[in-house]
Amino acid sequence: MALGEFALIERYFRAAGASRSDVPIGVGDDGAILRPPPGFDLVAVSDTLVEGVHFPQGAAPRSIGHRALAVNLSDIAAMGATPAWALLSLTLPTVDEPWLAEFSAGFGVLACEHEVALVGGDTTRGPLTLGVQVLGFVPQGEGLRRSGGRPGDLLCVSGTPGDAAAGLALLQRASARPAVPSAEVSSSTLSAPLATLQQRFEYPTPRLALGARLRTLASAGIDVSDGLYGDATKLAAASGCAVHIEPQRLPCSAALTAAVAAGVFTAAEAMAFVCAGGDDYELLFTMPPAAIPALQADIDRGDVTIIGALASGAGLWLLEQGVAQPATAAGFDHFG
Amino acid sequence: MALGEFALIERYFRAAGASRSDVPIGVGDDGAILRPPPGFDLVAVSDTLVEGVHFPQGAAPRSIGHRALAVNLSDIAAMGATPAWALLSLTLPTVDEPWLAEFSAGFGVLACEHEVALVGGDTTRGPLTLGVQVLGFVPQGEGLRRSGGRPGDLLCVSGTPGDAAAGLALLQRASARPAVPSAEVSSSTLSAPLATLQQRFEYPTPRLALGARLRTLASAGIDVSDGLYGDATKLAAASGCAVHIEPQRLPCSAALTAAVAAGVFTAAEAMAFVCAGGDDYELLFTMPPAAIPALQADIDRGDVTIIGALASGAGLWLLEQGVAQPATAAGFDHFG
Repeated sequence: MALGEFALIERYFRAAGASRSDVPIGVGDDGAILRPPPGFDLVAVSDTLVEGVHFPQGAAPRSIGHRALAVNLSDIAAMGATPAWALLSLTLPTVDEPWLAEFSAGFGVLACEHEVALVGGDTTRGPLTLGVQVLGFVPQGEGLRRSGGRPGDLLCVSGTPGDAAAGLALLQRASARPAVPSAEVSSSTLSAPLATLQQRFEYPTPRLALGARLRTLASAGIDVSDGLYGDATKLAAASGCAVHIEPQRLPCSAALTAAVAAGVFTAAEAMAFVCAGGDDYELLFTMPPAAIPALQADIDRGDVTIIGALASGAGLWLLEQGVAQPATAAGFDHFG
Repeated sequence: MALGEFALIERYFRAAGASRSDVPIGVGDDGAILRPPPGFDLVAVSDTLVEGVHFPQGAAPRSIGHRALAVNLSDIAAMGATPAWALLSLTLPTVDEPWLAEFSAGFGVLACEHEVALVGGDTTRGPLTLGVQVLGFVPQGEGLRRSGGRPGDLLCVSGTPGDAAAGLALLQRASARPAVPSAEVSSSTLSAPLATLQQRFEYPTPRLALGARLRTLASAGIDVSDGLYGDATKLAAASGCAVHIEPQRLPCSAALTAAVAAGVFTAAEAMAFVCAGGDDYELLFTMPPAAIPALQADIDRGDVTIIGALASGAGLWLLEQGVAQPATAAGFDHFG
């Protein structure tokens, strides 16, 4: 089924995403023409997903489309920005129309949800690689950085990190059983907690609303893409501080707790998912204690958890029974 | 030689490209923060190079770095825009430091030449793939489109298309000789005309200065990336016109003429390079006859050649001895 590059873009991507009035020219010319609002800074992020590295071979194409955009929206959220426009660089080994339909649906539904227009990109033949860039805005000078944390600021995380790594582990176990290709492992064949974990890997939720609120509350922010301890260490280093984490404060989802209770994972595996698993796309941020009241409702709901604090010094320290021990967590490093 | 992702970015890419005052945050945070000038539209382009598709295996890394940026700058030129910021998504099978040093030098020299700052991107492990995005500006409402051509407008091309395709053919012949890896085919081993052709493939020149001038002179523009006839057909279709080309007017470089004279290529091969070869990154544009005086000096120097005109109707027509014959030229279609 030979479908040319131009027909492919026309059929699957011209209408993917939202329609916006600030796009004088979108897909179809040498470049897109975009009209940024006056008084705002532009925020540009870029993330690439490679088959076999960022998702298992044979992963559901709808999930790949969702994740390719979600990981970028998460970076936008970590800057406190509002997304507007996306570019998509699609490298495909072959033109598989059912795959493309599912992929563009996964991408498009999330794009529409956040009013993101797909304004350009390119398609080429090669090993399956999805490059996405998103452009967004913040009021001038208000972008949330990694470097603004100060000693005494509290360290907070959104949601329940570790779920996505547990979900990926489930998918990898499934794909290790050759009789059941992973693309066909439907959530309906799993118990509810396991389906939840798998869903958390396949369809992460970028924390855009929280990120926009944090612009005026947080002193520094990063998204948890490479593991909680590693990303906390990066934030602390950028802020010129040490970071102290109290492991007993780390949130653990009901789904992951249930999976441990059912013997699907050991407690040690679960702890490793929470501390070093990537792919959650939660927000990790610091704030002065005075900001607590503004987030109290989020804290009460469990949407935000205080897990530690910045201190003078450097590096990652774990507070166990009141004693700080130095720790290391390189996070996930693609070339480590 | 294990070099982590963050060390890799720090060592090879933090200083690649120009330094600009409109970049409050560049490489190193979740995203870049950029300050667009008021009164301008933003132009966003994206192009990906895949090893074995867009350049031969073992191609010189300095050339790959140059081309990865140049193909995007060419799209910026075709919109009549001025480039400002670039993002780089680098997918590497392994960390090869000498390769990275050469690649970033090729990218960085061209970026500095055009005052382009490298503001972000990502690195990951996988099959060699270079994704680049460039952001630039045009005065609001003045972006050059493919769709503005009108019947009676003249069709013009910059430079001498076909050289790059001839240069690629030379590289492919060289890499077909296993004793001489193509990366080691130095221009110094070739005669001057062949070295020129190879250089035109490896180090194309984005026509940014011409593109910026065309904003107020041309009615429509596109860059010649997929072949002259194919790209002319695309411009004509976007403008709702037919395009008539006079093949005897097509420019042919002294280097390609010399290569034919020396028997390196047949005349038919050379004609195919000129009409359908890609990778030249020249500008193809239309303008009303009244614009000729403003480009007369360029025409006299051979930097711009009038090769045909738009007409009412549709499709590509070749004018031979005063008779228009319908023709087809799909150009290079990655999935055709």
